[in-house]
Amino acid sequence: MIKVSVLGATGYTGQELVRMLAQHPEVEVVGLGTQSYANQAYADVYPHFRQIVDLTCREANDPALIEQADVVFLALPHGLSVPYAEKCLAQGKKVVDLGADFRLKNPEVYRAWYKKTGPAAELLQQAVYGLPEINRELIKKTKLVANPGCYPTTAILALYPLLKEKLLDPSFLIIDSKSGVSGAGRSLKVGSLYSEVNEDFKVYGLPHHRHAPEIEQELSAAAGEEIKVSFTPHLVPLTRGMMSTIYTRPLTAEADKIKEVYQEYYSEEPFIRIYPQGEYPHTKWVQGTNFCDLGFSLDLRTGRLIIISVIDNLTKGASGQAIQNMNLMCGFEETLGLPKVALFP
Amino acid sequence: MIKVSVLGATGYTGQELVRMLAQHPEVEVVGLGTQSYANQAYADVYPHFRQIVDLTCREANDPALIEQADVVFLALPHGLSVPYAEKCLAQGKKVVDLGADFRLKNPEVYRAWYKKTGPAAELLQQAVYGLPEINRELIKKTKLVANPGCYPTTAILALYPLLKEKLLDPSFLIIDSKSGVSGAGRSLKVGSLYSEVNEDFKVYGLPHHRHAPEIEQELSAAAGEEIKVSFTPHLVPLTRGMMSTIYTRPLTAEADKIKEVYQEYYSEEPFIRIYPQGEYPHTKWVQGTNFCDLGFSLDLRTGRLIIISVIDNLTKGASGQAIQNMNLMCGFEETLGLPKVALFP
Amino acid sequence: MIKVSVLGATGYTGQELVRMLAQHPEVEVVGLGTQSYANQAYADVYPHFRQIVDLTCREANDPALIEQADVVFLALPHGLSVPYAEKCLAQGKKVVDLGADFRLKNPEVYRAWYKKTGPAAELLQQAVYGLPEINRELIKKTKLVANPGCYPTTAILALYPLLKEKLLDPSFLIIDSKSGVSGAGRSLKVGSLYSEVNEDFKVYGLPHHRHAPEIEQELSAAAGEEIKVSFTPHLVPLTRGMMSTIYTRPLTAEADKIKEVYQEYYSEEPFIRIYPQGEYPHTKWVQGTNFCDLGFSLDLRTGRLIIISVIDNLTKGASGQAIQNMNLMCGFEETLGLPKVALFP
Amino acid sequence: MIKVSVLGATGYTGQELVRMLAQHPEVEVVGLGTQSYANQAYADVYPHFRQIVDLTCREANDPALIEQADVVFLALPHGLSVPYAEKCLAQGKKVVDLGADFRLKNPEVYRAWYKKTGPAAELLQQAVYGLPEINRELIKKTKLVANPGCYPTTAILALYPLLKEKLLDPSFLIIDSKSGVSGAGRSLKVGSLYSEVNEDFKVYGLPHHRHAPEIEQELSAAAGEEIKVSFTPHLVPLTRGMMSTIYTRPLTAEADKIKEVYQEYYSEEPFIRIYPQGEYPHTKWVQGTNFCDLGFSLDLRTGRLIIISVIDNLTKGASGQAIQNMNLMCGFEETLGLPKVALFP
Repeated sequence: MIKVSVLGATGYTGQELVRMLAQHPEVEVVGLGTQSYANQAYADVYPHFRQIVDLTCREANDPALIEQADVVFLALPHGLSVPYAEKCLAQGKKVVDLGADFRLKNPEVYRAWYKKTGPAAELLQQAVYGLPEINRELIKKTKLVANPGCYPTTAILALYPLLKEKLLDPSFLIIDSKSGVSGAGRSLKVGSLYSEVNEDFKVYGLPHHRHAPEIEQELSAAAGEEIKVSFTPHLVPLTRGMMSTIYTRPLTAEADKIKEVYQEYYSEEPFIRIYPQGEYPHTKWVQGTNFCDLGFSLDLRTGRLIIISVIDNLTKGASGQAIQNMNLMCGFEETLGLPKVALFP
Repeated sequence: MIKVSVLGATGYTGQELVRMLAQHPEVEVVGLGTQSYANQAYADVYPHFRQIVDLTCREANDPALIEQADVVFLALPHGLSVPYAEKCLAQGKKVVDLGADFRLKNPEVYRAWYKKTGPAAELLQQAVYGLPEINRELIKKTKLVANPGCYPTTAILALYPLLKEKLLDPSFLIIDSKSGVSGAGRSLKVGSLYSEVNEDFKVYGLPHHRHAPEIEQELSAAAGEEIKVSFTPHLVPLTRGMMSTIYTRPLTAEADKIKEVYQEYYSEEPFIRIYPQGEYPHTKWVQGTNFCDLGFSLDLRTGRLIIISVIDNLTKGASGQAIQNMNLMCGFEETLGLPKVALFP
Repeated sequence: MIKVSVLGATGYTGQELVRMLAQHPEVEVVGLGTQSYANQAYADVYPHFRQIVDLTCREANDPALIEQADVVFLALPHGLSVPYAEKCLAQGKKVVDLGADFRLKNPEVYRAWYKKTGPAAELLQQAVYGLPEINRELIKKTKLVANPGCYPTTAILALYPLLKEKLLDPSFLIIDSKSGVSGAGRSLKVGSLYSEVNEDFKVYGLPHHRHAPEIEQELSAAAGEEIKVSFTPHLVPLTRGMMSTIYTRPLTAEADKIKEVYQEYYSEEPFIRIYPQGEYPHTKWVQGTNFCDLGFSLDLRTGRLIIISVIDNLTKGASGQAIQNMNLMCGFEETLGLPKVALFP
Repeated sequence: MIKVSVLGATGYTGQELVRMLAQHPEVEVVGLGTQSYANQAYADVYPHFRQIVDLTCREANDPALIEQADVVFLALPHGLSVPYAEKCLAQGKKVVDLGADFRLKNPEVYRAWYKKTGPAAELLQQAVYGLPEINRELIKKTKLVANPGCYPTTAILALYPLLKEKLLDPSFLIIDSKSGVSGAGRSLKVGSLYSEVNEDFKVYGLPHHRHAPEIEQELSAAAGEEIKVSFTPHLVPLTRGMMSTIYTRPLTAEADKIKEVYQEYYSEEPFIRIYPQGEYPHTKWVQGTNFCDLGFSLDLRTGRLIIISVIDNLTKGASGQAIQNMNLMCGFEETLGLPKVALFP
């Protein structure tokens, strides 16, 4: 049994952490930090936790949040994590940061996309990019995990094995992504209002969304060369769910070869499901779960391989993956406390 | 560990049963019967069960479904349960029927509302109306549970204690109910198409919906006199969720008295939450859970007591309650395998 | 051809006014006032007006907005209309106020519900409650119309004829109302976020919503006695649409009598449709139109008459009715520029 | 004033035709043919037409439907139009076919994609592909218009000018499309049920959707060479709306050149709006209108041009465009009776 604090517990990813942590057999949640709801009962902020979570929100910078915990989750707005992570590490605590601050290894890339300086090099070096399917052994050993972005999770899991095995032309990678609205968080924006989103579909972040360099960093490592991707996110009128439709140029004409590589990399993975050719996952089939579902179509007519990659943006795209990382860091079974059965319909 | 079969496993309530049974620590699902998908892998009918449920659907009337099971759930269209229940009981199996066939104790009322003859009197007598908060001890002892309808669950749980304690005028009961679309099941009707339901709100079943006599039967028992209710269901454009807004004439002018009675009846109930006056539950706060959440407002200006009763129609309104009944019938802890944390947002 | 200004043009009711005014054959829109978007092109605030409306937003208090117009619509937050209305009248302009300031005739009732003093008595006396089906002749002669609230429109149109003809027990009026989210406007509230509203259903404003006294004022006038109503609003996850389900005690046992009275009052009304008994309007059937659709069910089993009243909250519930009032005030054909064909599906 | 019949009037595109035809100043609707609802009042099938459309549905093959009309719209399932079109032309009537039968000029392509023989060559030659922005003069002179598919409308309007002007590499065209559910029509399929579509996002028709050859035919004509496209449709949980996100390789590095060509081709077009670079249309901004809105982003980092093309699939994607074609065929003003102001929000 470990003690866990969540900083930024009242945002949607924070709340999603609490949903799973409250049911995790090896976890006791001891602290919930927030920037807006300090001193309110957590069950008043999110009444579905009535009679389930009995904690009162504390100021995010209350030092006890870190002191009392073995593991600290940082679910803060981008750019705020560094000082918290430093404090945690100084006290020997484990940290999973759900923000972007520790994801980019190259400080210049960080500066170019975020228009400011990132964390100190020494700190950055400790951070492991928390995609267990790729970095499992490193995650087990680190005290600082940079939890991946939701879009990068869909794209990297779909492309990593095929690039690694040289089955794709690395100069031809187009990632057309679609996300539910919860990814925008609980902050107040006209564009997040029900009457604006409902019955609407839109593109955003064109042509330069901040998840592009994160995707490129990991895929470049897989391919062994510098890669640039076209990445276009869209907003879908649903709360949870994310799909990336990925267009590539395959270096093989055999679908079985593609399938084989996916099986080789992923058949033992507890949270990846590969679909038979001709079947494609829906977002609803992973709703509330930690799965990434993958399907593909090799179109010999046009010479293109199309990959469909699907997650729940709040779970495998954020908080579920964070807990998967925590399980690895703490030596628990990797799947502990992580939902596999979708809420359907 | 018991063995369980579900007959009618490919409808939404059947699927909801499988969702929870597949995660129930004391249950092994051994058989899934269906009228339309026999010989198909269950995970092909509902692909979110890929790598989770490995069974193939069988004809609903395959005798092995009953023979191999300790408990049988009947999630069949209304009117089809009787012969299956008979077979189960003849073999000493426990049965939870999610249909309406065993709910009405008075055969004439059944005939008047369903336009046909109900089950034989002997069989009917064995059936216990499966609302654990009211009939817990009887449920523990029976082999045949008539699982309540979704609307009646909201109405009876809201009104039973107040009528029992003579705090309400029994001649003034108006139940205005709103349901998500999953209650209509997976059958093909124009009125269930996305383009028809989305951005629409409608009333239906006016003035005589078949859940009215079920409500009246149980409330009459509570009040000790014959009761008639106005009951009006509406369809809300959401998948899961049900609210009843209930208008009554209180025989007390003290809100504390109302609260006190609710506490007396329900404070130990694991699946009922009473809200403080001035707070009212949302349907989303119980999404995917087995809770019934209750709020109320005593309006001295008009002399009326308004009660808000909220459930997930597929869970506490059907399959969750069915499993709660199974737990009681089998001597398990009542809450075993039943979700309490809503999927939010 | 008249000149029209809209003050508060960037809220949803303001935008809905512009939608219809831009297509009205006798109207030239000359001014759009706003509190938040001054000096922005209107088509930048609402891009669907690109190449349709070419105006730039001005400060709401720009005096030219009134000076240049023959008719001024006030679509401002409640409580702000009085000084604008005064200026308009002083310059001989016609005014339709979509807010609540001029709706309540009794200053004490206003003070009790709005916790502040309303407009001066003299000004208040000039205001006509703008429900054309009831006050048509008064509207034609006034320069100041208090446009009804959305909920009151559904309730009053449903009940007025039956109370006037003494067909209902005035002590038994229960109005259970359901509204789409656009009624909450474009302002930023957590409760209006997509992720909060979607897949949720909730009650609000219990037990004392400010539309209650407005309903009571008009129905008391109809009944010739003081009336109190139970009024409970709910939020439906859809953008446009409103239904009131109204429970009453009829003083007749003949459905034909009810039908007859509705026909007598409404058969010539261009924007009211009476449904045959057993058929009930959906909200989608009036989407984007100025109709109020009415259905009813006389339930002899319980002795209650249930009335279903449906509008589009932004159109007949606000801006469409405002233009209907303008048409009357200006001597145009009453239906001019007002949509009758719903956008379906 | 012309007389118009609609065959297939009870599907969604048929209903959308009636919505606009009922308000068209030069049209009298004289006949509504249907395969499922003959002898029912049209306002019983679609009650929002109560008091607006007073016709009774007739059998689709009732000869009077054609005899009484000057123009006949065929809104029938694919494959059924040919005999109807023949009868219309034999009687000198004008025909707009909303199905696919006359769209493909090459009978072998038709056979390859539709697995059956298309219309006779002579008949096929008379048919003009009804995209007014490209074939306006031909449409004015023909009696048989093949109304374009919804997806092809988005793709062709986006790409035609740029391919014609040799600004794009014709071997690199990827069309990632997203459609609302109304495109699937009113027929009963599990995949169209509310509970399945709501809160879901999925891909379908991979890798060979029948709209691909239609797109390729028109773009090949523009480019002057044989073109193959990658085309992937997705289903969005909304009723109306369609977006194509198109990935291309530009042969220019100047965004102004792209803009210029669009302006040259489309600045006079009444139903096309070009957005400034950096702004992209939402589907809701064209809801219920006949607009096609176009935005683009030239990404010099990756050397790709991304084009966003948006329509209402039922209007510009089907019935609105059909009426635009009728207007041209009949010598009316092209915009007559066609909505330009979206229903928002």
